[in-house]
Amino acid sequence: MSILNDLKNVLGAEYVLTGDATAKWQKDWTGDYELNPAVVVRPGTTAEVAAVLRIANEAEFAVVPVSGNTGLTGATANNGAIMLSVDRLNDVRKIDPDARSMTVGAGIILSSIHDAADAHDLIFPLIFGARGSAMIGGALSTNAGGSNVLRYGNTRDLCLGIEVVLADGRIVNLMSELHKDNSGLNLRHLMIGAEGTLGVITAAVLKLFPKPRAYATAMVAVPTIEDALRLLNQIQDATGGAVEAFEYMPRPYIDRHIERIKDARRPFDDAYDVNIMIEIGATAPKDATPRDNGAIPVVAQLEETLAAMFEDGRVLDAVVAQNEAQRREMWARREAAGEILFDAGHCVNTDIAVPLSKVGPALRSITTRLQSIDPDVHEIIVAHLGDGNIHHTSYPSRNEPDIMAAMIEAVEDVVQEFGGSFSAEHGVGKSKLDTMRRRKDPVALDVMRAIKSAVDPKGIMNPGKVIPT
Amino acid sequence: MSILNDLKNVLGAEYVLTGDATAKWQKDWTGDYELNPAVVVRPGTTAEVAAVLRIANEAEFAVVPVSGNTGLTGATANNGAIMLSVDRLNDVRKIDPDARSMTVGAGIILSSIHDAADAHDLIFPLIFGARGSAMIGGALSTNAGGSNVLRYGNTRDLCLGIEVVLADGRIVNLMSELHKDNSGLNLRHLMIGAEGTLGVITAAVLKLFPKPRAYATAMVAVPTIEDALRLLNQIQDATGGAVEAFEYMPRPYIDRHIERIKDARRPFDDAYDVNIMIEIGATAPKDATPRDNGAIPVVAQLEETLAAMFEDGRVLDAVVAQNEAQRREMWARREAAGEILFDAGHCVNTDIAVPLSKVGPALRSITTRLQSIDPDVHEIIVAHLGDGNIHHTSYPSRNEPDIMAAMIEAVEDVVQEFGGSFSAEHGVGKSKLDTMRRRKDPVALDVMRAIKSAVDPKGIMNPGKVIPT
Repeated sequence: MSILNDLKNVLGAEYVLTGDATAKWQKDWTGDYELNPAVVVRPGTTAEVAAVLRIANEAEFAVVPVSGNTGLTGATANNGAIMLSVDRLNDVRKIDPDARSMTVGAGIILSSIHDAADAHDLIFPLIFGARGSAMIGGALSTNAGGSNVLRYGNTRDLCLGIEVVLADGRIVNLMSELHKDNSGLNLRHLMIGAEGTLGVITAAVLKLFPKPRAYATAMVAVPTIEDALRLLNQIQDATGGAVEAFEYMPRPYIDRHIERIKDARRPFDDAYDVNIMIEIGATAPKDATPRDNGAIPVVAQLEETLAAMFEDGRVLDAVVAQNEAQRREMWARREAAGEILFDAGHCVNTDIAVPLSKVGPALRSITTRLQSIDPDVHEIIVAHLGDGNIHHTSYPSRNEPDIMAAMIEAVEDVVQEFGGSFSAEHGVGKSKLDTMRRRKDPVALDVMRAIKSAVDPKGIMNPGKVIPT
Repeated sequence: MSILNDLKNVLGAEYVLTGDATAKWQKDWTGDYELNPAVVVRPGTTAEVAAVLRIANEAEFAVVPVSGNTGLTGATANNGAIMLSVDRLNDVRKIDPDARSMTVGAGIILSSIHDAADAHDLIFPLIFGARGSAMIGGALSTNAGGSNVLRYGNTRDLCLGIEVVLADGRIVNLMSELHKDNSGLNLRHLMIGAEGTLGVITAAVLKLFPKPRAYATAMVAVPTIEDALRLLNQIQDATGGAVEAFEYMPRPYIDRHIERIKDARRPFDDAYDVNIMIEIGATAPKDATPRDNGAIPVVAQLEETLAAMFEDGRVLDAVVAQNEAQRREMWARREAAGEILFDAGHCVNTDIAVPLSKVGPALRSITTRLQSIDPDVHEIIVAHLGDGNIHHTSYPSRNEPDIMAAMIEAVEDVVQEFGGSFSAEHGVGKSKLDTMRRRKDPVALDVMRAIKSAVDPKGIMNPGKVIPT
C-alpha cells in the first residue's frame, strides 16, 4: 500500500498500525459487523488529522473515523479502509465554570468529561451505559441520546461549537462558545449526527449544567401506558419540569432482569405490567436542603404526589429510593438492558421513536403484527418513554432470517404509520442503510446525497453508511 | 413578464399582485432597503408554493420568501424578484396538549401562536417586540432569538419538524413530532436559519411548554458587569435554572428611555451604571401558590436573595415588581428599544454576541476603539446579557458614512478578537453579507457555497443574501 509511507511520514510509524496491531479496532461491541481496516492511524493533532485526510483524498482511499467504537449500527464497519482513530485527541483544553462550558478534543472518554465537570460542581448530562469507553467524537457523530434527554436534550443540544476536518483536509473552525450565533447556514448541526460521512469532528465546546444537589428516584407501577404519560405530565407540572429520566420497563423486562442478573430483585412485591423509573433532579437549595425532620423536599414532594395518585387509582404501587444504594439499584436495573436483552443472532433489536401520545397504540399494533408472523414471539421492551424512544426487542420462536427480517419490517411499518422514526438515538450506520433507502422521505434523501457529493466529492468519508446511493 | 400568466394560472389572478397592489411588501421595518418586487404571489397551499417555485426555477427567476417582513437585515430586499408571501399559510393545524406540540402553517403570526397555546394553559416561549406582526416562517428562517432564549433556546430549539419547498418545487417532508430522530443528515437545522436561501419553509411542528403560574420580576443595580454575571449564576442556582430573562440596560439606555418616552420613570431613585431586568418563571405550584400571608414563594425567594446580596454590597439597589402593572412597566422599558434607539442614518446598530465571561472586557474594548475614531461618540447598549447577546448602538458626533463604517469595523474587530459573532440573533440578510465574506471562517463559507449550489443550482432562492459569492 503506497500511502502507508506517506502516513508514516506524517504521523510517525508508531501511530500507523497494520496487521495484529489493529486488533483492538477490529471488533465493535455488537460483534455483528466486519471491521477489517487496511491501516489504523492515530493522529495526535488536528493538523495531523488534516494531513491524513489529504493523503487519503488524493489516493481516493476510504476513511472511517472511529472513537470509542461503542456504536450499535455498524457505523465503523469496513473492509480495507483507513480507520482514523481520534483517541489521542483526548485533552480537556479549557473549562469555564462561570460560562458553564468546556472545550475538549474529540477522543476524550465520556466519563472523563463527567469527572472534569464534577470537579467544578457541574455536570455534562449526556449519560448512557457505555460512558466508560464511548468518546465524545462518536457521541457527537451519532448525536447520541441516553436517559437524560428529557431534561437536557440530545448530544447536539449539549454542544456549542465543533471543529471538523473535511475529506480534503480543510479544517472548518466552528469552535464557538456562543449561545446565539446566526452567521450563515448552521454547519455545526449538519456535521453533528452525520456519522463521519461529511468529515471528522476533532474538537468540541460543550455545555455544562449545575449539578443537582439531590435526586428523587422512584419505581412506579401504573395501570396503562397512557397512565404513565399522565404521570409524567403530572410530575413535570409539580416540579416545574425537573424530571431527568422517565424509563419504561414492562413486566417482561423485569422478568428477564431477574432471570439474567444474579441477586436481582423485583421492584415491587407484586408483578405489574407497566413499571416506570422516574428521577427528578433538584438543583435549587430550597428543593434539596433537608428539612428539620430530615426529609429532603424534592423526595417528600415526589412521595406526596405519588400518594395522592395512589389514592385515586392512577398509581398501583410505588417505591421511592430512600438512599443512594436504593437509587443505584433502580438505575442498575435499567442499565442492565444491553447485557440482558442481547442474544446474538436470536433477536431483533430496534431503536424507534413515535410521538409521545402514540406510544401505546403503536406498541399494541406492533404486538398484533408480530404475532401474526409468529404466534409464539416474545417481546421485551425498554424505553426512554419521556422521549417516545422505544427499544423493542423481538425473540422469534425460530431462529430464521426470513422471520427476523419480517419482524423488523413489521415494526418499521408501524413506526412509519404512526409518524415515527426507525432510528431514534443510535443512528443509521450500516445496519439501517436499506431502511433509509426505503423509508426516509425521498426528497430528503436526494438533498442528503447532493450535500454529500458537494462536501465529499470523491466519497471517501465513511462510504456505505447513512446515505444510500 | 411571461411567467405572470403561468403564476395566475396556478394561483388565480387574485393572488398574483403587481404594481400598487404590492405596496404592502415594498417596505420593511427599517426603511433601509429597497424592496421592489416584479410580482408578489400569495400561494394558499404547499402545493401552490411548489408550483410557484417550479415556474420560477424553470425561468431562472429570483424568488424572495417573505412572511411578516419584520427582519432587521434586509433579508427580503430585492429589485425585480418574485416575492413569495406565505401569509395565507396561517392555520393552526393541530394542537396536542399532552405531547406539548403544535402544528402550524408558516404564515401564522407569532402572537396567534401564543394565543392558541394559552388556550391550553401552555406557552410557546419565543418572545420579541415584533410578535404582533412577525410570522413563524420568518422566525424559523432567521432562527430568531429574543428575551427568553436563556431558558428556552433560540427558535431552532423550539421546533420539532418543518416542511420545506426546494427551489425546483420538490417538497421535503420533515414534519416530525419526535424528540429523538437520528435518521440521516439533519436537514431541519440546515433549513432553519438559512434565511430562505435553500428553500421556503411552509409549515412547522412547534414545542410547547407549561405556562409559568407566577413570575418574579425585578430591576437590579449592581456595581459592574462582572457582578451582573455573578448575580445571574446566583439566581440560577437558587431557583434551579428558572431565570427566563436577564436584560442589561446601562445608564445611557435608561436616560434615553426617559428622554424619548412620555411619562417614563427611572427604575431607581438614584442613577446607576449597570441595571439588570431579571425575570424568573415559576411553573411548579410549590413556587407559585401564595402562602397564608399572601407572599408568592418565587417572589419572596427573589427578594430574599437580593436582600442578602445587598447586605454584602454585591447589589446596589433592587425593585421587585409587586403586581402585573409594575412588571409590565419593567418590560415596557426593555421593549421600547426599537423605538428609542433607532435614529435613521445617524447611528450604527449591531447585533453581536461574545462568550459570557468576556462581555465586560469586550464592551470596554469597544468603547476605547470607538473613542479613538470619534472622541465624542455616544454609545447606548441594551443586551440579552444571559446569552452574551449585545445590541450596541453608536451615535457618532458627525453623520459621515466613513466614520460610521469605521465604527462598525471597530465593533466587529473586537467581537472577532473575543471569539464572538457579528450576527447573534438577527441573521445576515443583505446587511452583513460583506462581513460574512471577510470575517466568517473561509472554509465554512466554502462549505456553505457548495451546499447552496447543490440544493439550489440555478441560484434562484433569495440571491445576494447570507452566502457571499
